[in-house]
Amino acid sequence: MKKDIKEYIRTIPDFPEKGIMFRDITSVLNDADGLRLAIDLMEEKAKKYDFDLIVGPESRGFIFGVPIAYNLYKPFAPVRKKGKLPSETVSVEYDLEYGTAVLEMHKDAIKKGQKVLIVDDLMATGGTIEAITKLVESLGGEVVAGIFLIELKGLKGREKFKNFPVETIISYEGK
Amino acid sequence: MKKDIKEYIRTIPDFPEKGIMFRDITSVLNDADGLRLAIDLMEEKAKKYDFDLIVGPESRGFIFGVPIAYNLYKPFAPVRKKGKLPSETVSVEYDLEYGTAVLEMHKDAIKKGQKVLIVDDLMATGGTIEAITKLVESLGGEVVAGIFLIELKGLKGREKFKNFPVETIISYEGK
Repeated sequence: MKKDIKEYIRTIPDFPEKGIMFRDITSVLNDADGLRLAIDLMEEKAKKYDFDLIVGPESRGFIFGVPIAYNLYKPFAPVRKKGKLPSETVSVEYDLEYGTAVLEMHKDAIKKGQKVLIVDDLMATGGTIEAITKLVESLGGEVVAGIFLIELKGLKGREKFKNFPVETIISYEGK
Repeated sequence: MKKDIKEYIRTIPDFPEKGIMFRDITSVLNDADGLRLAIDLMEEKAKKYDFDLIVGPESRGFIFGVPIAYNLYKPFAPVRKKGKLPSETVSVEYDLEYGTAVLEMHKDAIKKGQKVLIVDDLMATGGTIEAITKLVESLGGEVVAGIFLIELKGLKGREKFKNFPVETIISYEGK
C-alpha cells in the first residue's frame, strides 16, 4: 500500500550542522514504492511543459532528472562541480553560506533556443537554481520551469524566480 | 534512427591527465535515443538476475542505477563520498592512483540477506566496485552481479571479481 510521498522522507536533525533539519531522500529511494512515486509525481509536473531537455545538478539532480528524461524521451545534461566535465565548459561562481563554489556545463550541452527544464531534489535558498539558470542562458537556452521534490519554504527560494514557474511536490515551512 | 550505443560515446584525449583517453558519457545522455538505449541495454542485463535492490556510487552510478531501479520496481541505495550521507553509515577506504578515498553507505540501506545489483557507468581497475562490495557485505548483503556501461579491458578490473558476474555493454581494449 502506497503511503503519502511525504511519509517516505526521513528528517535528520543537526545535519550537516547544528540547527539544520536535513530532509533525507535516501529513505524515499530505499523503497520501491517511494522511488516510483517520487519520480511519477515530478514527471506529472514536468509533462505540463513544452521542453527540449532536462538539466540537473550533481549529484541528487541526477537521481530524479535522468529517470524523468528517460520516461519522457528527452536528453539530459548534467551540471557538475568544477573540473569534472571532460570537454569545453562554461562556468559560474555562486555564493554558499561560507565562501563560493563553481558549477560547470559542457558548452555543447544546449543548442541555442532550446527549452530547458531544471530538475533537482530540493529548492532551498534557490542559489544553485539561479546558478544553473545563468549557465543555461549563457548557452542560449531558456529555462521553462524548475521541478523539485522538496521545497524549504522558510528560505524563500521561490521569490528569486520571476521568469519561470517553480513546481514542488513536498514543502516544509521551515528552513 | 538509432545508432550503435558505442557511437554515442565521445572520447576526450588527455583528460583528466595526459595520456588518458576519457570515455565521456555526457554525449550519450545528451541524445534522447542514446539515453534510452544505454539504460535499456543495461536493464536487459539486470533482468537476468534475481535481486532485491540496486546500489550505485556517486555520481555517475546514480545516472544509470536509478532509471533501472525505477523500470524494474526495485529500491536504490546510493554509495557516497565521506560526509554526504546524513544518517549512520558504514565506510570503506580504498586506493586511488595517488592516495586514498572513503566511500560510505547508510547502515540501514541493506537488510541482512538482501541480494544486491551494483550499477555504475564504468569499470576501470575495479577498485570502486571492490570497495562497494565490501560495504554491501559488511551490512549482510550479497552482490549478485555488477552491470556497467563501459569496460576498460586493459585495466583488467574483471579479474578482481570471482564471486559474481560482471556485465558490460561497451568495451575498449586500452586503459
